[in-house]
Amino acid sequence: MSVQDEFSFINSITPKKYKQPHLVAGVGDDAALYSGNNDVEEIVCMDTMIEEVHFNRQTMKPFHIGYKALASNISDIAAMGGVPNFYLVSIAIPKHWPDTGLLEIYKGMEALADRYQMDLIGGDTVSSKHSLVITVTVIGRVLKGRHLLRKNAKANDIVFATGSLGDSMAGLELLLKSGVDFNFSKDEQALITRHQLPEPRVEIGQILAKFPRVALNDVSDGIASELNEIASASDVTIVIEAEKLPKSSQITSFSEDQQLHWMLNGGEDYELVGTVSEEDWIEIKKECEQKNYSITKIGYVTNGPAKVLIKQGDQMNLLQMLGFNHFK
Amino acid sequence: MSVQDEFSFINSITPKKYKQPHLVAGVGDDAALYSGNNDVEEIVCMDTMIEEVHFNRQTMKPFHIGYKALASNISDIAAMGGVPNFYLVSIAIPKHWPDTGLLEIYKGMEALADRYQMDLIGGDTVSSKHSLVITVTVIGRVLKGRHLLRKNAKANDIVFATGSLGDSMAGLELLLKSGVDFNFSKDEQALITRHQLPEPRVEIGQILAKFPRVALNDVSDGIASELNEIASASDVTIVIEAEKLPKSSQITSFSEDQQLHWMLNGGEDYELVGTVSEEDWIEIKKECEQKNYSITKIGYVTNGPAKVLIKQGDQMNLLQMLGFNHFK
Repeated sequence: MSVQDEFSFINSITPKKYKQPHLVAGVGDDAALYSGNNDVEEIVCMDTMIEEVHFNRQTMKPFHIGYKALASNISDIAAMGGVPNFYLVSIAIPKHWPDTGLLEIYKGMEALADRYQMDLIGGDTVSSKHSLVITVTVIGRVLKGRHLLRKNAKANDIVFATGSLGDSMAGLELLLKSGVDFNFSKDEQALITRHQLPEPRVEIGQILAKFPRVALNDVSDGIASELNEIASASDVTIVIEAEKLPKSSQITSFSEDQQLHWMLNGGEDYELVGTVSEEDWIEIKKECEQKNYSITKIGYVTNGPAKVLIKQGDQMNLLQMLGFNHFK
Repeated sequence: MSVQDEFSFINSITPKKYKQPHLVAGVGDDAALYSGNNDVEEIVCMDTMIEEVHFNRQTMKPFHIGYKALASNISDIAAMGGVPNFYLVSIAIPKHWPDTGLLEIYKGMEALADRYQMDLIGGDTVSSKHSLVITVTVIGRVLKGRHLLRKNAKANDIVFATGSLGDSMAGLELLLKSGVDFNFSKDEQALITRHQLPEPRVEIGQILAKFPRVALNDVSDGIASELNEIASASDVTIVIEAEKLPKSSQITSFSEDQQLHWMLNGGEDYELVGTVSEEDWIEIKKECEQKNYSITKIGYVTNGPAKVLIKQGDQMNLLQMLGFNHFK
């Protein structure tokens, strides 16, 4: 990009107005400014997505790339019990990317940001020799003392998951097989949408943040990994039951083994998993049902060393974190 | 990097203790948390540096890369009149980078962070197919209403610059010619240090923030660019005098033309340039002199369209923003 092109590109992505009342200065100076507030804790997180590592032209259109880069960060804010307010975007652009594609990336972010009244307040635009690299920082807030940490799990808690698990990886499988432009069936498209346009669970996080002690994590790497993080931070044993894992009707077209693998290790569903006391679970379940948010009990917590066990029929096995990186 | 290597790497860069009293949760959960405060404005900025675009093995050792990636962000906080508190680092690592090099990058950041009692509170570690990409987000604070924006310049202000200009690019020239391991003279090494380990001017920013109306920018792209930004944001004409631009003794070994070009367009000096009323200038100059901080009057502001003029002897020319990207 020439200097002139860069100016005009930056100009085209600079917000014309802002939504958050506590913003003091957005894009256009050395840094952004927002007012402090004694009643809250500020939350900040940062995630990077790289072409050929986290996505490629076969699996994601530019709109999806932007949307998902922001969604993964919003999901982290949701997993702290917070609401997102601001985002900053640093993008490294290779020459082979057309300007229209770049604008689509920002449109994808905007579509999701609008839903939460979030403002784009800064970032950086640089050129890259090879791949597109997009790094997003999100800043949010939670009422003082209301944040939800992974270390909150205790024996006798129940373990829950929101929504359905494994869909994102099922969608990816379809995309890798047939490509982003294929004419998918309605059921297939539902899985693909979960991969390309995942929904962070901010609203459910807000319900959970009303309760005094919830351990929470978002499903970016798969629940095997997320639950191990909770077990380790809380020093408890977590037991889940394979039969209770929530799944969509669409994923059942794949083999049982495939389904279970994706539900446990797939990741990128951006659901929430966590633990809460039995009394509070009753309240939480009720409030989620009233609002039509799907949330499912999948297991329980016991005293014991930090580990995760999975019950399948009569068998009880150790559930280890595998991680999952499909383009490696 | 294998999953196991990644865990051990992340573990080795995770801070063992934190310094900022308002931090609630650092590295290790979905996001970091810090307490809000009614008396301040939070400041946030984000910068990316890419191998073969912003640096290469010929010009920067890993320690310098980390140091400079953080320095450029701290400089943005300084240019708002703030102090830095926290940083987040997202790093995309190609396979050809050894672990020792990566740790050196974080050591370079730590060396600078320690000076300002800054805490590393989050980020992301991903693999890259080609170049190393490092993106840093810095969060700082300024007393409510004390921030310094580019739009503050008014006619009859004086224009100032801190330190000396152009040294960073002179240092780069030496590095590109002879490489990072060459046995440079003491004078050459001074210029190289300004390129590899620039000093953000946080302390001078703090002095400036005590005054009611300072327009300020940091010198990342060269003063031609920075002053045009101030002129444009403030809608004033800025006039600077070539003879008054502050230069180091070391840079004078280069030709007059070369020196002037670097002082105007070189960038990466991370000095501060700005404008302030004549009365306040007297106070600022006095306080900087007492503390041994170098600050120099380089011109003045007039009513008129947004532009920057440069006086050289009898001539007055328009000073346009060129930008500067040495690896393109």
